[in-house]
Amino acid sequence: MDKNKALDKVKPHLTEHRYIHTLGVTEKAVELADKTGIDRKQAELAAIFHDYAKFRSKEEMRGIIRKQEWDKNFINYGDELLHAPAGAFLVNKEIGIEDEEILSAIFWHTTGKAKMNTLEKILFLADYIEPNRIFPGVDEVRKTAEKNIDHAIVMALRNTIVFLMKKNQRVFPQTLYAYNDMIEKIKNQSNIGG
Amino acid sequence: MDKNKALDKVKPHLTEHRYIHTLGVTEKAVELADKTGIDRKQAELAAIFHDYAKFRSKEEMRGIIRKQEWDKNFINYGDELLHAPAGAFLVNKEIGIEDEEILSAIFWHTTGKAKMNTLEKILFLADYIEPNRIFPGVDEVRKTAEKNIDHAIVMALRNTIVFLMKKNQRVFPQTLYAYNDMIEKIKNQSNIGG
Repeated sequence: MDKNKALDKVKPHLTEHRYIHTLGVTEKAVELADKTGIDRKQAELAAIFHDYAKFRSKEEMRGIIRKQEWDKNFINYGDELLHAPAGAFLVNKEIGIEDEEILSAIFWHTTGKAKMNTLEKILFLADYIEPNRIFPGVDEVRKTAEKNIDHAIVMALRNTIVFLMKKNQRVFPQTLYAYNDMIEKIKNQSNIGG
Repeated sequence: MDKNKALDKVKPHLTEHRYIHTLGVTEKAVELADKTGIDRKQAELAAIFHDYAKFRSKEEMRGIIRKQEWDKNFINYGDELLHAPAGAFLVNKEIGIEDEEILSAIFWHTTGKAKMNTLEKILFLADYIEPNRIFPGVDEVRKTAEKNIDHAIVMALRNTIVFLMKKNQRVFPQTLYAYNDMIEKIKNQSNIGG
């Protein structure tokens, strides 16, 4: 699907703020795709549609998750987690995207998971560091991402876990598994940072 | 088993520093047992023997864990985790303690786990806040423990997870499950603190 057509399709589903965020994620995802040598069209489409379900009702999203053979923790760990798996489902059903890699990247973009492939990592990271994001620690992750994407993802996962714990919120287990997996992967590298 | 006899049995297995720590944990565990209304003799014995295997060789401890039907992550998440499950095994085999609750409290005292019973919670917390412990954040957990043991355990688990992540170390999944479980348990209480 052509970029402009994809943007036209997603726009009615987003607020202006969220559409601007989506443009930022798309820019960043394509940049990271070029850097890692993966298909930039795949990264672009995954980014454009990653928040497709963001403004669906919680009831609709919970209903989708309940009907699938997915980890039911997506329902139990806070409403912020619903739109990623529900979005993967709806982007397939309503937009007709059938590329399993794109759908999986959308599915896991909020939580991360163990053994992420490059497209999943790129979307997770692009969502975290796109230019419009402003929150404590994001600049450090941005700088690290220029040098090492895996190290930047470790920092983003760690920040996410600490952020949730500071608010006395539970942490989705796959987010810890993602962190543990990335640490294991890079443990022979130095200067993880932060 | 009488307290002095138990201390005589554990002493040869510990350094002086670790023996003093054990006395501190015992004092604190008995105090917390009285506070929560559980058997103080059980708490005392669990505390006295909690670090029984601390100075066994890593090979011996790994060998014990490999032979049991236990989570093999105990071997893969850093040597600091070995002595708790190995200790539960050895305290049973060499000291003859058969009380499953005492053995379980020893087994989980380093990592914590989801759905800890009161004895498991008390030993986990006493080990963290006993009077000889000095590390950043321990005083805050001590103060909280005077008011609410569950809240203090959440803080100790959170501190542990953040501490490991700051060192770019992996986090044993049960430690996160313990945190998530305790948060769920107290989510209707206020003033968790920290």
